[in-house]
Amino acid sequence: MKFKKNKNFSEWYSEVIQEAELADLRYNIKGFIVNRWLAVKAMKLMYALYEDELERTGHKPHWFPALIPEKNFVKEAEHAKGFAPEVFWVSGAGSSGKLLAEKFAMRPTSETAIMQMFKEWIRSWRDLPYKLYQDCQIWRYETKATRPFLRGREFHWIETHCAFVNQKDAEVQVLQDMKITEKIMHKEFAIPFMFFRRPEWDKFKGAVYTFACDSLFPNGKIVQQPSTHYFGTKFAQAFDVKFIDKNEKEQYAHTTAYGPAIWRMMGSLIATHGDDKGLIFPPKIAPVQVVIVPILFKGKEKVVLEGARELHKYLKNSGLRVELDLTDKTPGNKFYYWELRGTPIRIEIGPRDISSKSVTMVRRDTGVKSNVKATKILEEVNRTNDLILIGLKRKADAQFSQFISSAKTYSELKEIIDKKGGLVRTNWCSVSKSGEACAKKLKDKTTAEVRGVRVDKNERPTGNCIICGKPAKVVVYIGKAY
Amino acid sequence: MKFKKNKNFSEWYSEVIQEAELADLRYNIKGFIVNRWLAVKAMKLMYALYEDELERTGHKPHWFPALIPEKNFVKEAEHAKGFAPEVFWVSGAGSSGKLLAEKFAMRPTSETAIMQMFKEWIRSWRDLPYKLYQDCQIWRYETKATRPFLRGREFHWIETHCAFVNQKDAEVQVLQDMKITEKIMHKEFAIPFMFFRRPEWDKFKGAVYTFACDSLFPNGKIVQQPSTHYFGTKFAQAFDVKFIDKNEKEQYAHTTAYGPAIWRMMGSLIATHGDDKGLIFPPKIAPVQVVIVPILFKGKEKVVLEGARELHKYLKNSGLRVELDLTDKTPGNKFYYWELRGTPIRIEIGPRDISSKSVTMVRRDTGVKSNVKATKILEEVNRTNDLILIGLKRKADAQFSQFISSAKTYSELKEIIDKKGGLVRTNWCSVSKSGEACAKKLKDKTTAEVRGVRVDKNERPTGNCIICGKPAKVVVYIGKAY
Repeated sequence: MKFKKNKNFSEWYSEVIQEAELADLRYNIKGFIVNRWLAVKAMKLMYALYEDELERTGHKPHWFPALIPEKNFVKEAEHAKGFAPEVFWVSGAGSSGKLLAEKFAMRPTSETAIMQMFKEWIRSWRDLPYKLYQDCQIWRYETKATRPFLRGREFHWIETHCAFVNQKDAEVQVLQDMKITEKIMHKEFAIPFMFFRRPEWDKFKGAVYTFACDSLFPNGKIVQQPSTHYFGTKFAQAFDVKFIDKNEKEQYAHTTAYGPAIWRMMGSLIATHGDDKGLIFPPKIAPVQVVIVPILFKGKEKVVLEGARELHKYLKNSGLRVELDLTDKTPGNKFYYWELRGTPIRIEIGPRDISSKSVTMVRRDTGVKSNVKATKILEEVNRTNDLILIGLKRKADAQFSQFISSAKTYSELKEIIDKKGGLVRTNWCSVSKSGEACAKKLKDKTTAEVRGVRVDKNERPTGNCIICGKPAKVVVYIGKAY
Repeated sequence: MKFKKNKNFSEWYSEVIQEAELADLRYNIKGFIVNRWLAVKAMKLMYALYEDELERTGHKPHWFPALIPEKNFVKEAEHAKGFAPEVFWVSGAGSSGKLLAEKFAMRPTSETAIMQMFKEWIRSWRDLPYKLYQDCQIWRYETKATRPFLRGREFHWIETHCAFVNQKDAEVQVLQDMKITEKIMHKEFAIPFMFFRRPEWDKFKGAVYTFACDSLFPNGKIVQQPSTHYFGTKFAQAFDVKFIDKNEKEQYAHTTAYGPAIWRMMGSLIATHGDDKGLIFPPKIAPVQVVIVPILFKGKEKVVLEGARELHKYLKNSGLRVELDLTDKTPGNKFYYWELRGTPIRIEIGPRDISSKSVTMVRRDTGVKSNVKATKILEEVNRTNDLILIGLKRKADAQFSQFISSAKTYSELKEIIDKKGGLVRTNWCSVSKSGEACAKKLKDKTTAEVRGVRVDKNERPTGNCIICGKPAKVVVYIGKAY
């Protein structure tokens, strides 16, 4: 690695993606990348953890078509207006590319594909709640600069879509979506975040409200992670999703959606945990959890290789993802290779280890070496993996806290935003439509955005809006986003 | 279920898909369906088994873009000509749908996306073999009638793409692909098949040769399952994929591809194992492996429910996918519901079971009931699941064998094809280009097709071609395909 994470974060991020072979940006369509094995394997493990939790909380997997007829797409007016600029359209087929009778949108999100089926599936209160998820790709004709695992014209995500008998049940789902984010993204992936109720002007197109979570990059820039939306009956009305309630009255269903973008979480994972040697994977989602490097000396090759092979087999059979590096690289080059690729634990095994019935174990996150008795290896690997997750989480949480500041005036805010970044707490006139003018002014002057009011805390303003000077109705958080 | 599988197979197939809620065909794009949870969950389990085996045999997961630039797509002439009629084209984007500078194909298969990256990744013999797979959807503008899990304009599959230093290594891969098919599709999904080397006129467009496996539906119609292709250096030449060999000479890579279509295997699974009560899932890929139905009598509800809940928790913690049916349906309706959905094992638990410390276990495939001691339940569930797989496989294999016939003359062939279907072994002039005229004649007269020569057996012809009467060079298998 040429670049230092803390000095040149942006260059470091590009370098680690290229050097660890996470993605190849040379695919010849703008904004589309090739996701290579180390990233894909990690994302598959991330998908598995997320989907387990979604199924545990009652969501059933479905797969909807990638294409959405234009006539569905335009049914909910706000949604159509908001998403249309980002749509790739399929309008021809066959050798001649002859025009189809109608245009199809490559899904930028699936509300308008799913709602027409909800209309068929939901008839009575007995059919509710209806909770589903799908793992899929979505496509958006982004005009902003794309970056791998951050913003692209194609990305891999999960979307949940749920329907309920009333607002109360739907809002319980929104709360559950946030709990799931905490349980998986924070507890398992060790990516810290803060949930905000987005201002009126920044909510999902078609939602009554949006709770979105912001995570931070080490350069103080904000990366939006999953958001969850309460749609009220807006989509249900547009798509005529009605049911007969317990009193035999017809009602519109209340719907919600939640969108954990695994591809973007991969971006936060790289940025949050990596160091100047490369990636660091939390053990549960590490494509390779343990690498065994045999240290060969002349005349002792056989016994060392035998020991290494035996250990490899033993750890593999114990359910670990383990590699035995038998390439003809030097041990030093092997260390470098696997450190770059974020393997949490390295085990070195040489002639002396064989004779003393022990191995050398090295932690990727701290670099700490220890001597481990052969009989204790599995126990020590499991214990160390637990410690690594705890360590990564503690470090990430500490870094996140350092990026939360407060500002009483615009000039204070500007100084923090420019020098340090992160999320700055401040007084604001309003997050309803009337506050948008101030947000625009702020953005024009600083490129920073109002991210919204906190969901987990009821914060009361203590002064005036830092832009217009009118009495503040809310406390908001402000920062620069990718 | 209204229809009988053996009398009205086609109607039975449609009915079970609708009644068990495997798919919804009302999505408003022709040839695109909504895959519902029972099917999706089963397919996810099928994907997992297949991917484990692919990774075990050295294939690394990758995700390539869904779109392929037209300029890539046309590079290998035969491939372009063969696939162009089936391509959906993306040519516009944004609110106005304004035309993009170039057209993109929605991938109908990914050779032309992947080869340009192989060109970047493969430089030396040290980079080979390069073995990758991706799980994804593909889109084909089918003009034939579509059927769920059989033929659609969108389907879910896995594709592997591998590059090697020479023909020998590439052909070993083709053999391995067939072994993987046997290990997973036959041994785990219990779907029998026969591998054929496809005639020249029916091979994959761009391949040197294609080995494809044919499975059979209970109505005697052929369904093509995975095929594996040896491309020689054809794609490597079109995309300039070269490497420096051990003698420092520049060589083109030899490539292969293999396409297990999980979505279509789901079709074979439904058709092969189902009966007049509905689906039957092989236990390892059953979305629900065990259903517990409490049999409630007045005054005894509490003790039965407690017992049922305890058992549910115990089996769940043992790693089984188990449901406790607490809906307000009658036990009979619950039995019907879960039988229709193919759940391999039902456990009934009533007051008498509680007092005798036992349960009633019912096998979905045979309907056999047995009384099982509480202490033996897990053991018996596991043993029964093994027996169910063995039973399903034996039954499927026997049915498959019954569909293999031989014919010495055209009239014999026609009679078998019309009355019974299946695969008919017969003499044929040739499977190179010169035999195509006979194949066309056959197809015009019978709609049956020449599927090719067997890969696992060297069969020698003993007479003349049943169409042209010229001395037969090969023994082929003929049948009607979906």
